[in-house]
Amino acid sequence: MTNALRIGLAGLGTIGGGVAGLLTHDAGPLGSRAGKPLALTAVSARDRKKRRKVQINGIAWEDDALALAQRPDVDVVVELIGGENGVAGALVEAALNNRKHVVTANKALLALHGARLALLAEQKGVSLRFEAAIAGGVPIVKALRESLIAYEITAVRGILNGTCNFILTEMEKTGRSFPDILAEAQKQGIAEADPALDVGGLDTAHKLSLLATLAFGTLPDFAAVTVKGIEAITPDDIAFAREFRCRIRLLGVACRTANGIEQRVYPAMVRAGTPLADVEGTFNAVVADMGEAGQFFFEGGGAGEGPTASAVIADLIDVARGNTGPTFGRRAVELTKFTAAPPDAHISSYYLRFQVFDVPGVMAEISHKLAAEHVSIESMIQRGRAPGEPVSIVMITHETAEGTLLRALKAIAASDKVFERPTMIPMEAV
Amino acid sequence: MTNALRIGLAGLGTIGGGVAGLLTHDAGPLGSRAGKPLALTAVSARDRKKRRKVQINGIAWEDDALALAQRPDVDVVVELIGGENGVAGALVEAALNNRKHVVTANKALLALHGARLALLAEQKGVSLRFEAAIAGGVPIVKALRESLIAYEITAVRGILNGTCNFILTEMEKTGRSFPDILAEAQKQGIAEADPALDVGGLDTAHKLSLLATLAFGTLPDFAAVTVKGIEAITPDDIAFAREFRCRIRLLGVACRTANGIEQRVYPAMVRAGTPLADVEGTFNAVVADMGEAGQFFFEGGGAGEGPTASAVIADLIDVARGNTGPTFGRRAVELTKFTAAPPDAHISSYYLRFQVFDVPGVMAEISHKLAAEHVSIESMIQRGRAPGEPVSIVMITHETAEGTLLRALKAIAASDKVFERPTMIPMEAV
Repeated sequence: MTNALRIGLAGLGTIGGGVAGLLTHDAGPLGSRAGKPLALTAVSARDRKKRRKVQINGIAWEDDALALAQRPDVDVVVELIGGENGVAGALVEAALNNRKHVVTANKALLALHGARLALLAEQKGVSLRFEAAIAGGVPIVKALRESLIAYEITAVRGILNGTCNFILTEMEKTGRSFPDILAEAQKQGIAEADPALDVGGLDTAHKLSLLATLAFGTLPDFAAVTVKGIEAITPDDIAFAREFRCRIRLLGVACRTANGIEQRVYPAMVRAGTPLADVEGTFNAVVADMGEAGQFFFEGGGAGEGPTASAVIADLIDVARGNTGPTFGRRAVELTKFTAAPPDAHISSYYLRFQVFDVPGVMAEISHKLAAEHVSIESMIQRGRAPGEPVSIVMITHETAEGTLLRALKAIAASDKVFERPTMIPMEAV
Repeated sequence: MTNALRIGLAGLGTIGGGVAGLLTHDAGPLGSRAGKPLALTAVSARDRKKRRKVQINGIAWEDDALALAQRPDVDVVVELIGGENGVAGALVEAALNNRKHVVTANKALLALHGARLALLAEQKGVSLRFEAAIAGGVPIVKALRESLIAYEITAVRGILNGTCNFILTEMEKTGRSFPDILAEAQKQGIAEADPALDVGGLDTAHKLSLLATLAFGTLPDFAAVTVKGIEAITPDDIAFAREFRCRIRLLGVACRTANGIEQRVYPAMVRAGTPLADVEGTFNAVVADMGEAGQFFFEGGGAGEGPTASAVIADLIDVARGNTGPTFGRRAVELTKFTAAPPDAHISSYYLRFQVFDVPGVMAEISHKLAAEHVSIESMIQRGRAPGEPVSIVMITHETAEGTLLRALKAIAASDKVFERPTMIPMEAV
């Protein structure tokens, strides 16, 4: 096995265990796909004695993951520890410095330090691969890096977080509230004990900034992503969405505009019948718009052992085959700094929900304040009458700039007839 | 430009012209993606004097495409002539023999001679790439060759012919007949003057046999594909499909079964709401089922200049980067001969339409003859009464083997109360 690709694996959780299992049980067929044997030579995880499905006897053990980067019997380090700093970052950097290839699922690390690490990989003549970091087994990183190249990509839109999509889908099916369904998702192991990174949209934002880098050839700029999570979505919003023939989905959207590149993570009203509206449960999906070649849609398992281990294996086979294109599809020095479009300039139709007291004049006041900012209404629903009591008024606006709408909503929120901050959800025009 | 990838292009039709345009106008950005310049050094087409959008002055011209394979200033031959034999086949073979890489969109050639040509490419140490041959710009060849590898693929299903999908979609929208819509598609340039290869299903069959090769690691076996086209689909079938909440789509399906590998091209009843049912117009799509990693869905422009030229460029950049994995993702000598499942053993529910005389006892006779073969009925529609006149009886069966059903239909067709060969359309369970 002198010509084998020798693998050091850091992290033996769900994904790491899956990868180790494939490398030990399916070594034959995978080696045939790779053109050389794939040999798992060393592993590292927190607890050596933990009971595991996968048999790791006979494979070298390192208590300190960093030691994998020093081993002469490791050609490629697989980093499945996670986290934007700490040992994961140190391991990736040390591995690259020691001219070892790196395969990782770490979106946070790459969103924040990807440009520097990609440059380091190129300087050292090794590969840095991250298919598993975005949309699990869906080969969207490879597609953007190697396939959708001939024409300029104008926009990428994705459902990139399976936990959020599961919660929104279950809210639709059951009519139950966000906290209820979140608790259930935690019980099922679909949501983490600390769900903030997922439901708050940050995980989607990490992935989006990497998709933008691949699609536009720009430097990752995570700080320029505007992020809104799904915590405030109510069963009412879900029900009204249906009346407007829409579904609410947490999207990551990156697109070129006249004002620069927009990167936004937000719950959106997506029209029923469009590809992203039909993505259910923990599935992930990406739509890429590519000029004269039209629109491409990719969907599949976005999380969990099978899909994510599949992506790690595909990267390992690329490394074994010597497919050594640059990390983001262009040389790191050629990635350009982009101008971020000001969030206020975002143009869209919006869903608005106002909680108001059902008193004479409330509708007139809202309409007047919208009109004062030249925001016009496309359709409106006021369900139920309860004189003097709280009711919902819901509307879809015509296209307007977000900054303009925010000014109007501020004026409306100041009214004593409106007793809650208005809810505002952009329509996504795909 | 000594380190450039030097390209010889055969065929300057829609796709070839698009490729030549990209190589001449976007040489800068493409070279940056490729890591070296892409230089179009020689072209060949039928008529040198034809007016073309693309400027080919200054590029060497060959009247005989075969001469491209001999030129010392050509590293890769792009074959966009088409056809399973003739000059296209001779050119590809000569190019490989002369150690030139080949990029082609020729599904017919590869379906019939792919195993031999892949072996030749490997022996000569060059690449044979064919992303543009299947589903246009959708990177399904690369996905199956390089990404969906970790687990065994159990089935691939695709809408692989834009012409057929356009015709079926238009029949749905307008209620008009197959010949009507075909004529319109020909006028719009969406169908060829001789549409047999498309509407008869052979083009889909060529592509399907290549998908099966990529998915299962088996030798292409085009002769084992059972093929049925869309010519016999009537507006009635389309309308009844809607009543059963289905849409009719021409599918190519390859799957592993207990009896061997099935490869079938046929108009199928696809349940509304499943991914393939929602594919409209000239779009193409593929669903791959991959064991523990679940189902993956890919959709995009399947034909025409933009999508197809995009796929050719992606292959060229792979060649430029030295991404040299084997043609079908496994070494040609490792591709295995497969056992074809007998078509009669195919298990499915079926849509059946009988044209009968509305006389007493006809329904009893049909039910009786189905029951005699143990074919049971899930649901049935008989619309309109016209005593003594022809009416349609339509039903969906429970699951049955195709051979069993064919025996029952033969017995039914012999009845003097039934005046047309029954129509039989399998339900596709995805």
